[in-house]
Amino acid sequence: MQAQLIALDWGTSSLRAYKLGPAGTVLEQRSLAWGIMHLPNEPRDIAGVRCSDGFELAFDAACGDWLDAEPGLPVIACGMVGSAQGWSEAAYRNTPVDVASLGQALHKVRSLRGVDVHIVPGVIEQVGLPNVMRGEETQVLGVLQGLGTDALIGLPGSHSKWVEVVDGCIIHFDTFMTGELFAVLSKHSLLGRTQQHSAQFQADAFDRGVQVALSKDGQRGVLSTLFSARTLGLTAELSPEQQPDYLSGLLIGHELAGLPGSARHKPIILVGAAPLCARYQRALALCGFAHVSLAQEATERGLWQLAVASGLTQPVLEA
Amino acid sequence: MQAQLIALDWGTSSLRAYKLGPAGTVLEQRSLAWGIMHLPNEPRDIAGVRCSDGFELAFDAACGDWLDAEPGLPVIACGMVGSAQGWSEAAYRNTPVDVASLGQALHKVRSLRGVDVHIVPGVIEQVGLPNVMRGEETQVLGVLQGLGTDALIGLPGSHSKWVEVVDGCIIHFDTFMTGELFAVLSKHSLLGRTQQHSAQFQADAFDRGVQVALSKDGQRGVLSTLFSARTLGLTAELSPEQQPDYLSGLLIGHELAGLPGSARHKPIILVGAAPLCARYQRALALCGFAHVSLAQEATERGLWQLAVASGLTQPVLEA
Repeated sequence: MQAQLIALDWGTSSLRAYKLGPAGTVLEQRSLAWGIMHLPNEPRDIAGVRCSDGFELAFDAACGDWLDAEPGLPVIACGMVGSAQGWSEAAYRNTPVDVASLGQALHKVRSLRGVDVHIVPGVIEQVGLPNVMRGEETQVLGVLQGLGTDALIGLPGSHSKWVEVVDGCIIHFDTFMTGELFAVLSKHSLLGRTQQHSAQFQADAFDRGVQVALSKDGQRGVLSTLFSARTLGLTAELSPEQQPDYLSGLLIGHELAGLPGSARHKPIILVGAAPLCARYQRALALCGFAHVSLAQEATERGLWQLAVASGLTQPVLEA
Repeated sequence: MQAQLIALDWGTSSLRAYKLGPAGTVLEQRSLAWGIMHLPNEPRDIAGVRCSDGFELAFDAACGDWLDAEPGLPVIACGMVGSAQGWSEAAYRNTPVDVASLGQALHKVRSLRGVDVHIVPGVIEQVGLPNVMRGEETQVLGVLQGLGTDALIGLPGSHSKWVEVVDGCIIHFDTFMTGELFAVLSKHSLLGRTQQHSAQFQADAFDRGVQVALSKDGQRGVLSTLFSARTLGLTAELSPEQQPDYLSGLLIGHELAGLPGSARHKPIILVGAAPLCARYQRALALCGFAHVSLAQEATERGLWQLAVASGLTQPVLEA
């Protein structure tokens, strides 16, 4: 099949490149360690010019050979590559946004080899406390493809996003710093000192953490329940091996307790790494959320949809 | 005035020694850097014996000369010195506790020079999630001296304690990991990267943080509002200098929002370092708590009360 689009998922710590064919079929894909905070710095010739720019070098490594073989391929990219610390800043677009409006707002940066990279802008919500995302909007739009209903889309991670979608539009989203908090507490706080990592998922401890977050004790908030990760160790109710998963359940439980009440009646779709999504799925079940499913290949599908909406490529219906 | 008691406030990072006279008057006091996690290790002769034990060395440095001058003085100590990592473990006592019951439960460790050190046990609450404290119970009992009413006593810090006192008894307490969370987030998370320390207290930013915690947004919990410390920076609503105090206000606000509703009608007494207590006093006022006062010399007064209750020393009424 003939390639139609190069799609880049370019975040803080990694860079994934997809060569997409008709209807967005993935023909080839690569994963590189060159996120925008970890760019290559070995000078190299690109298009006959000595180059030491990290973005150019990473871009060339990700898809230079694909462009050599098919010079006319359009390129689209999403993620932190469009942030102030990225290759070129793509200003945030306000909610509500949909595929059509974001597709019309791609931000162009011309690479050394003369090819334009079309960067998907992030999304900002400015009602109440401001909230931002970059990259997740593309995943959400990828999930929406073919989804005939309103939904709440959860993207667990360092900064988990929960995105409310109505009529194909992103109308509202929240951010929870759950993953980063888990990491800094485990590495740098008193709680980490008594934790011992276990290869085995400690399901009982995880569930207990979720339940504490949902309990009357949990209503005092996570600043209060956090200390139980220590005291339950002191009273020998949690072994050192159980403490990390207890903390994980506790934090995820508090995150889910913070979702709007209306979320309970909407289909929930999770997007992200499988082991993390499995934790969230387990916790959602404990919280009484009924309709939960997992999405696959959200980013590449979202990038394809946006490229179609922008006119970069043609929609080709599958046979 | 003649000395009657040596009282030690021996925590994780510091050791304070008091020579107390009649009615607990402070005759002399010292502060040393030798908390139980930072003990001296230079061997020295104590009572004619070569000694390299950190607890003995620190104890000798803190009050060896006082004991040389008045060999019969009784010694009492509170804090982490009685923990499993301390000099000798003083098992936790269950709530409810008062001066009489804690005073009867002092734990003795004999020092090299033959003097007994009487360690105040920590307190554990095992109703619901377990909760523990060591040292704060002594401060609370010091505050109660002469207090004719029930109260809620707040001890802000790395692990803030809120202690409910009824009829001179500690009946319930909560722990909030506010101070430690502020420290690890400022040092090790994304939020710290855009913070800039200012010598000036940023009152508006602090107040805004408290108000966000109390707002509808705050009801989603601190995992959600935390991200606003970043986004308000992105939207230029918080300068880098304002971000630390915004985060401080936000966390303290969430802590106060977690206090029981009944707290609103009780006198609140704060114990701790003056600048931190000033922050809490400001935040409590924003939260609508009316009766807030500050306590002084809580630790030395508590140690004196406990020594009297245990019979280590005699109460002497002031003239």
